[in-house]
Amino acid sequence: MGPGDLSTVLAPLPRQMDARLLVGSETFDDAGVFRLSDDLALVQTVDFFAPIVDDPYAFGQIAAANALSDVYAMGGEPLTALCIAAFPTGRLPLSVLTEILRGAQDKVREAGAVVAGGHTVVDDEPKFGLAVTGRADPRRLLTNAAAAPGDVLVLTKPIGSGILSTAAKQGKLDEETTRVMIDTMSRLNAAASRAALAAGARCGTDITGFGLLGHLSHIARASNVTIRVSRARVPLLPRAREFAEAGITTGGAERNEEYLEQRVDWGACSDVDRALLVDPQTSGGLLVALPRTAVPEYLSRVEGATEIGSADPRSSFDILIS
Amino acid sequence: MGPGDLSTVLAPLPRQMDARLLVGSETFDDAGVFRLSDDLALVQTVDFFAPIVDDPYAFGQIAAANALSDVYAMGGEPLTALCIAAFPTGRLPLSVLTEILRGAQDKVREAGAVVAGGHTVVDDEPKFGLAVTGRADPRRLLTNAAAAPGDVLVLTKPIGSGILSTAAKQGKLDEETTRVMIDTMSRLNAAASRAALAAGARCGTDITGFGLLGHLSHIARASNVTIRVSRARVPLLPRAREFAEAGITTGGAERNEEYLEQRVDWGACSDVDRALLVDPQTSGGLLVALPRTAVPEYLSRVEGATEIGSADPRSSFDILIS
Repeated sequence: MGPGDLSTVLAPLPRQMDARLLVGSETFDDAGVFRLSDDLALVQTVDFFAPIVDDPYAFGQIAAANALSDVYAMGGEPLTALCIAAFPTGRLPLSVLTEILRGAQDKVREAGAVVAGGHTVVDDEPKFGLAVTGRADPRRLLTNAAAAPGDVLVLTKPIGSGILSTAAKQGKLDEETTRVMIDTMSRLNAAASRAALAAGARCGTDITGFGLLGHLSHIARASNVTIRVSRARVPLLPRAREFAEAGITTGGAERNEEYLEQRVDWGACSDVDRALLVDPQTSGGLLVALPRTAVPEYLSRVEGATEIGSADPRSSFDILIS
Repeated sequence: MGPGDLSTVLAPLPRQMDARLLVGSETFDDAGVFRLSDDLALVQTVDFFAPIVDDPYAFGQIAAANALSDVYAMGGEPLTALCIAAFPTGRLPLSVLTEILRGAQDKVREAGAVVAGGHTVVDDEPKFGLAVTGRADPRRLLTNAAAAPGDVLVLTKPIGSGILSTAAKQGKLDEETTRVMIDTMSRLNAAASRAALAAGARCGTDITGFGLLGHLSHIARASNVTIRVSRARVPLLPRAREFAEAGITTGGAERNEEYLEQRVDWGACSDVDRALLVDPQTSGGLLVALPRTAVPEYLSRVEGATEIGSADPRSSFDILIS
């Protein structure tokens, strides 16, 4: 569901008053954080979606990496996962669901966590995802609200997976690019998260459905800064620009662009650049705000990490594109 | 998804070797249990389903009570919940989803827990549920595997909600019975769970989709006992027998009966009794195995609790109906 409808749904609900809930759903953060003790918090998240690749094992891996990423994005370490599946029993062989679960279970184990259960319903369209619980030190969380003017913004994976997976559904994606796309979406954000904590970072998120600019906009507002993004520096998946130029897009991108229209100073941004910057990602990279002095070490520790912009004192826009 | 298909899906998966996972999905228990320390375990569960009542607020309450019940069924106290929603945006007003969430949030708060987040997808058919996390003492869990010969089985809510909600969908249920059905399904199993722990019980489950006999069969096999059920003692929701006699049933009941056919000595059980005993429940009561000496106090503490049978040494059937 898009960010506008979601706000309409949630706005009338009474605000929960519970001092144990350190991070709730009000701040657009990636996961809820619940304090168990002074040095132990649970980080919790749930996400699920329809298949975005044909291979069921790869889909399970991507769905798991995507859900686990919300825990990493808060500075947590995953402990457990519950699998959530909707499956068209009778229309697809049950072995397809087994392969999805196998992919998820392998990825959860790679993260050092364990599958503790799940729930499956019969449904026309398959969907799969996970509810993940991690642990974190409540004094060392990564949130949307902690970027400071002068911080450098680093992104750890290329964007464009929404456009590429749409191209794949249309049968237009070659085998090699498909492999790169799947590998990128399957990759855990574990190292990116640990290196951020080691660098003393307190602000981070992962790039998912709201696209790079949508998530940057959440950081800008929560931190009361304006974010400057250098569009030439943003790393792209192979062929993402080519398919964007060919007009391949998603409904999510349209909703994201509408939501961002007035919040962004688009500068000389072309339509194709816009399409890439608002492209909804699945299992995207971490976006971390770092003091400039910490950047070289972070870039050397985290494969694929790229400096894409910086935080300025707050002006009238959330984001300035240059 | 029925128990047969589910076994087919899960059987080929490699067994996870993780000493922290005290209860996984292999034992048909109500929730996974993950050890955090010697005296602290996380109890985790996820459940969601299509609306079973018209009133969205009541549906949210029932969905929450149902998911929270899995934590109570393991002897845990709920801490957090993540909401899971599929919603036909455009076809139903968004305020319907707000009311579902309001019902869930109110019930979660009644349980002393807090909603820590959620995920919503656009879908043709609305579905709603929750992933719930609780805490428990790993030395004092309620599991399927701890019934001993001589134990008395106590059920804390009447059965028949599957039949009644089907009758309601067909427009056959009067207002008063609808109210009783909703109240019963909305009731938390908190007191039933705490009283079981206070009585020293170690075996319990809640009655949900597999029906009374399906869940009893899980206990019988996990505990290596045979369970004797006195069908005249099993408490029924008002009019449940009347609608069962009229042939109102569910697909789940058929799957449950097929699964149980050879595992139960049906005795002189009529077709109508069978239909009631395998009727899938939503947010059903706790089923607790207690030493006979603990029964009077338990019955006095837990409103609606009823003795329905006892555990015998293992014979060739899981269950004997008398």
